[in-house]
Amino acid sequence: MRVAFLGFGLIAGSIARAVRAAPDAVDWTMAAWSPSGAGPALAAGDDTIDLAAASPAIAIRGADLVLLAAPVPACLTLMDDLAADLGDVLEADALVTDVASTKAMLVQRADALGLRYVGGHPMAGMESSGYAAGRADLFVDRPWVIVPSRSAWPGDAERVQTLARMCGARPIQLEASVHDRVVAGVSHLPLLLAAALVEAVAGRDSSDVAKDWSVAAPLAASGWRDMTRLAHGDPAMGAGLMATNSAALAERLRDLEAVLRSWRSELDRADGPDPVAIEERLRAAAASLDAS
Amino acid sequence: MRVAFLGFGLIAGSIARAVRAAPDAVDWTMAAWSPSGAGPALAAGDDTIDLAAASPAIAIRGADLVLLAAPVPACLTLMDDLAADLGDVLEADALVTDVASTKAMLVQRADALGLRYVGGHPMAGMESSGYAAGRADLFVDRPWVIVPSRSAWPGDAERVQTLARMCGARPIQLEASVHDRVVAGVSHLPLLLAAALVEAVAGRDSSDVAKDWSVAAPLAASGWRDMTRLAHGDPAMGAGLMATNSAALAERLRDLEAVLRSWRSELDRADGPDPVAIEERLRAAAASLDAS
Repeated sequence: MRVAFLGFGLIAGSIARAVRAAPDAVDWTMAAWSPSGAGPALAAGDDTIDLAAASPAIAIRGADLVLLAAPVPACLTLMDDLAADLGDVLEADALVTDVASTKAMLVQRADALGLRYVGGHPMAGMESSGYAAGRADLFVDRPWVIVPSRSAWPGDAERVQTLARMCGARPIQLEASVHDRVVAGVSHLPLLLAAALVEAVAGRDSSDVAKDWSVAAPLAASGWRDMTRLAHGDPAMGAGLMATNSAALAERLRDLEAVLRSWRSELDRADGPDPVAIEERLRAAAASLDAS
Repeated sequence: MRVAFLGFGLIAGSIARAVRAAPDAVDWTMAAWSPSGAGPALAAGDDTIDLAAASPAIAIRGADLVLLAAPVPACLTLMDDLAADLGDVLEADALVTDVASTKAMLVQRADALGLRYVGGHPMAGMESSGYAAGRADLFVDRPWVIVPSRSAWPGDAERVQTLARMCGARPIQLEASVHDRVVAGVSHLPLLLAAALVEAVAGRDSSDVAKDWSVAAPLAASGWRDMTRLAHGDPAMGAGLMATNSAALAERLRDLEAVLRSWRSELDRADGPDPVAIEERLRAAAASLDAS
């Protein structure tokens, strides 16, 4: 198996390390290209990969599996290139996969281009970036969503599953639209909410002393820190997730807005809020978390 | 100084431990009563307090400072008792304080009863409860909000500040309404939001596979856990906070709802969301956190 990485940061670097360490992959060869070339150079230097390629064309030559490891917009451009200029270099039976966080746009593009493609989304919490931060065990026991496309061949999904298992991940097959709507709820909405909470509470410069952040900040404790930690993330990455999954995220946001309206109705009751009803709601929420 | 605790769990137990360890308080005596008597018995057994009192009347006899360490509704009842049946036992110059999480209701009641009262709110993240979980250093470097009332005498606030400093806390004086509106934003709204996120995303039992929690739960990662951790808290305590601070919380919730509407407008733009605008919003949110 010959693998070509286009884009080579934390995720691709962690995959390459896991493959290099896998006993089943002793005959695999890996090439990598990235816009800066920094990650591939490091990885070739420490013998994680076999070739730091100077261009995408050099990286994909002879590859059985091309792994796009870039933000969604860059993946779309790379797909266009693979179907156009790079089409002469790409092996006829090469399979394309990726590690991007939203899937519907990529599946649509691959199908439109007739590109042999199976989408992937290895899910691991990441607070750092770049090849140097990668770890061979980053995906151990983590889900790796596998998303089929119409242009994939029989057995292609299994090839990506094999890669996922080699990294210690648990492959989970989902339709692209289901994946995007699920991650909108468990990943993108939490990010939006953390930012919105900051905007609503910490973003004020007001003559109202109770909304003066210099008064409030010293009183913020662990609950505040938990609920705003995601707002410290990379703004460009967050914007990419939200913009490329906006319809699913807006759907989830509407659901949440309806829930918040029902909370406000409870708080605004003419005869005062009912502590028993609130306690029941909080107890039910905790129970649905514990059930998972 | 003679201190009487009415209610004696994690908070009061931690204060008692800190006082016992304080070099300035070698001549202080402490008595405690709680409904179950369990905490006071343990604290008398390990010589943290001088007396495990069998009743509130026994606890407050001769006390200079009566500290109410109970949820807000129980504090209100204790205040009523101090102004009525217990009035004969309470020293004429005894000062009443408390450690409850909302303050306006208590100040109003104290003023209505003519009770000599200065409110307090030591703020520390607490995931456990009961005297046994207490620690002498629980409040070190934490804020301890001090809230005056009309019925307090000159110098009373300073007496509570002395207690706060003895526990290593940083006393911060605020009006009751300002305190309640600030904690509505940094503490109670985050709690409501964690529960609402769970209700909106994890509470579904739906024929829509993308809203089936058994499908979504395996894909939930660290961001989801951060944003829902508060929903695991004690439902009765959470309901007490929200119900006794409902007006301030509803105000903050309306602010948040307006922010969420503006996010949805961005996601729902006819020509698609603008990644640059989203990135700018996320960057500004992160910056306002970093500034604090």
